[in-house]
Amino acid sequence: MTHHTAEHRDPAMNECIDNCSRCHAICLETINYCLGQGGKHAEAGHINLMAVCADICATSADAMLRGAAVHTATCGACAEVCRRCAESCEAMGDDAQMQRCAETCRKCAESCARMAA
Amino acid sequence: MTHHTAEHRDPAMNECIDNCSRCHAICLETINYCLGQGGKHAEAGHINLMAVCADICATSADAMLRGAAVHTATCGACAEVCRRCAESCEAMGDDAQMQRCAETCRKCAESCARMAA
Amino acid sequence: MTHHTAEHRDPAMNECIDNCSRCHAICLETINYCLGQGGKHAEAGHINLMAVCADICATSADAMLRGAAVHTATCGACAEVCRRCAESCEAMGDDAQMQRCAETCRKCAESCARMAA
Amino acid sequence: MTHHTAEHRDPAMNECIDNCSRCHAICLETINYCLGQGGKHAEAGHINLMAVCADICATSADAMLRGAAVHTATCGACAEVCRRCAESCEAMGDDAQMQRCAETCRKCAESCARMAA
Repeated sequence: MTHHTAEHRDPAMNECIDNCSRCHAICLETINYCLGQGGKHAEAGHINLMAVCADICATSADAMLRGAAVHTATCGACAEVCRRCAESCEAMGDDAQMQRCAETCRKCAESCARMAA
Repeated sequence: MTHHTAEHRDPAMNECIDNCSRCHAICLETINYCLGQGGKHAEAGHINLMAVCADICATSADAMLRGAAVHTATCGACAEVCRRCAESCEAMGDDAQMQRCAETCRKCAESCARMAA
Repeated sequence: MTHHTAEHRDPAMNECIDNCSRCHAICLETINYCLGQGGKHAEAGHINLMAVCADICATSADAMLRGAAVHTATCGACAEVCRRCAESCEAMGDDAQMQRCAETCRKCAESCARMAA
Repeated sequence: MTHHTAEHRDPAMNECIDNCSRCHAICLETINYCLGQGGKHAEAGHINLMAVCADICATSADAMLRGAAVHTATCGACAEVCRRCAESCEAMGDDAQMQRCAETCRKCAESCARMAA
């Protein structure tokens, strides 16, 4: 039995791969947005957190795409980083890009927490 | 003017980001498939080429998501690696997974070559 | 106060960055070695575990290089993946490359566990 | 014959792996430094270029660690990105961190150009 394609994987895992991929992408886009905004948006703590969030989302998505059982460990860390990244985005105020990024992080955190359990 | 979301980017760049993301994913899935097949499918030269293809596809997609002008350089390398990866997959024979991977690599190579021009 | 260079970081963190970088590198080298050996060395479960280990080691080293406080989460996952990777390498038998990889994973797991605490 | 460890690789390739690893690390550290400096140091164009430089350096180092022949393509792109990153760092003025980053990028560009030839 093989598990190397989306058709053979658990639907919850496919959804988690998609959530991680979207979170990875929006964090990179939002770094660019925040650098353009300047001020508190461009502070090192916030930018670096989004960068680590992009990295761990990629590592978790890739662990699931590889079919590696150890994705539980990376998804656990991903859930934690995504939660903190969502909080950092929400603390920036109510502009649309930060809200989109925060929502995507929250959704990714929830599905990663389920995969880690 | 900002270019931090899909709506603000050139449609050809959005298509290239999608092609790179799909090629990255199918290469990781196909590594798992080929290891399960064994024999020539699992030879180091083929597996390592798919791994580098997954890496450069991610680097190129990320360069475009970041809004970095230097994506032309990464996309040029990505086009070359994807072409070689497609040839390696085609040389494995005519099973469905290798054909899917080869087609995805060819499509990615073409859009990356256009972005690099 | 800045923490952007090795001179400004805690010595334990610098050691952890080095351990993650070495573990990342030896896992990629050992994948190549194991593919050349074939048999149980080249089984998907073992190869994919080393690949995820290389990925999470890079993500953790990068989190520390970025100066991101959230490195505690990535280091926690890294410690767990490195432990499992060491076990998988040790189960391969007593050849020198597997022993070197297992030792490097163990060392990385220990320093990451300390950084995560 | 195997090429899975530093002892078995060409000395020039080992040097290039080291140069890529150092350039990857200093770019991540310098992003943090530049965000702390603010002003032109923290402009999106400069920060994103250093981020892509860190990514392609990792992809090139990994291609060589994997023993993949296609490292010539990634090293070609790496040489180009490193050259542009060095120019961007030099344009920031004469502070010590930017000079260190520029020198490391130049050194990496040179050894990558040799590996790509």
